[in-house]
Amino acid sequence: MFPEKMQKVIEWFGSLPGIGHKSAERIAFYLLGLPPEKIKSFSEDMLSMNRGVKACSACGNYADSDLCGICGDESRDPSVLCVVESPKDVIVFEKSSQYRGRYHVLGGKLSPLDGIGPDELNITRLRERVEKESVKELIIATGADLEGEATADYIAGLFKEGGLKVSRIAFGIPFGSNLDFANSATIEKALKYRVDISKDKKN
Amino acid sequence: MFPEKMQKVIEWFGSLPGIGHKSAERIAFYLLGLPPEKIKSFSEDMLSMNRGVKACSACGNYADSDLCGICGDESRDPSVLCVVESPKDVIVFEKSSQYRGRYHVLGGKLSPLDGIGPDELNITRLRERVEKESVKELIIATGADLEGEATADYIAGLFKEGGLKVSRIAFGIPFGSNLDFANSATIEKALKYRVDISKDKKN
Repeated sequence: MFPEKMQKVIEWFGSLPGIGHKSAERIAFYLLGLPPEKIKSFSEDMLSMNRGVKACSACGNYADSDLCGICGDESRDPSVLCVVESPKDVIVFEKSSQYRGRYHVLGGKLSPLDGIGPDELNITRLRERVEKESVKELIIATGADLEGEATADYIAGLFKEGGLKVSRIAFGIPFGSNLDFANSATIEKALKYRVDISKDKKN
Repeated sequence: MFPEKMQKVIEWFGSLPGIGHKSAERIAFYLLGLPPEKIKSFSEDMLSMNRGVKACSACGNYADSDLCGICGDESRDPSVLCVVESPKDVIVFEKSSQYRGRYHVLGGKLSPLDGIGPDELNITRLRERVEKESVKELIIATGADLEGEATADYIAGLFKEGGLKVSRIAFGIPFGSNLDFANSATIEKALKYRVDISKDKKN
């Protein structure tokens, strides 16, 4: 139905996450209308990203150079590290604009069934950073699932001695959401970690 | 927030039709995980399509070589030409699998306000084909708007003499659709071109 050269491009785009076949077709038609220089420059940017973006040598986040933008930013508080599973999580925190500390990217979570133990995660580097940098608090922001919880417990266990504060991000009802949509595990967390607000009223 | 090299790729994907910013981010993360050879081969296929896909010398449809797959297919009926505005329309007809004739792609429709007259459309070639090939019928499938109708009338006028059958695709209520969603112009067409079904019952 499509010329073979077009069909190939449609299949490429269709294989990308979130792009259906219909969208892939629309994109192929669109690309046919672009000057070849644009396609070349698009291709070069993709390859340059694929080859040039590496793990930050400090935190493991994606970086253009040795250090990522956050580790290289002197204005970020070096005394707090938010420990996350992946670079995607860094983006989620950064989008909220609520965090001024730095990160540490584990590159996954403990999952014995998948053969992922502590050695497969970026944990040796975390210990080094805690020893050598002026870290005062780790905020563990691994996922709210069993593996994420196990990873959080494991890291908390590693730093039991030495006066480092290790905290876990709060779990509860998503803000702006209706109670109807919360599952039992969320309700359990929301009850367990309920906050006394009578103090707020008194002050 | 993203490394610069990633940001560029996100902007590229975000500029494609049907891809929002969030999808573009997901795609960039996905591409980071691919081996560079895949990205190269993706890029080569895009460039090869952009440079290699040309207008079919017979009908104006997109083609890998001199003739498109349909004009090069001996099993297609050369006596009927479906006249459409663009290669996208060819795909729509082909997907229905209901048409075994060939096509003629005009490359647009008459639109004096946009400076598109008969000379801007692939009409000279259509006259040549009608003269030289064994064409017996033109099915005009330009759009159901004013310009599409004007284009259909213009082409019908060109071939008034000479015994060539010129037909127009039917307009009416879309099959499977509810009358509620049909606009007045569609209802008007559906009434005007109503079909006598009493014969079907008798035979």
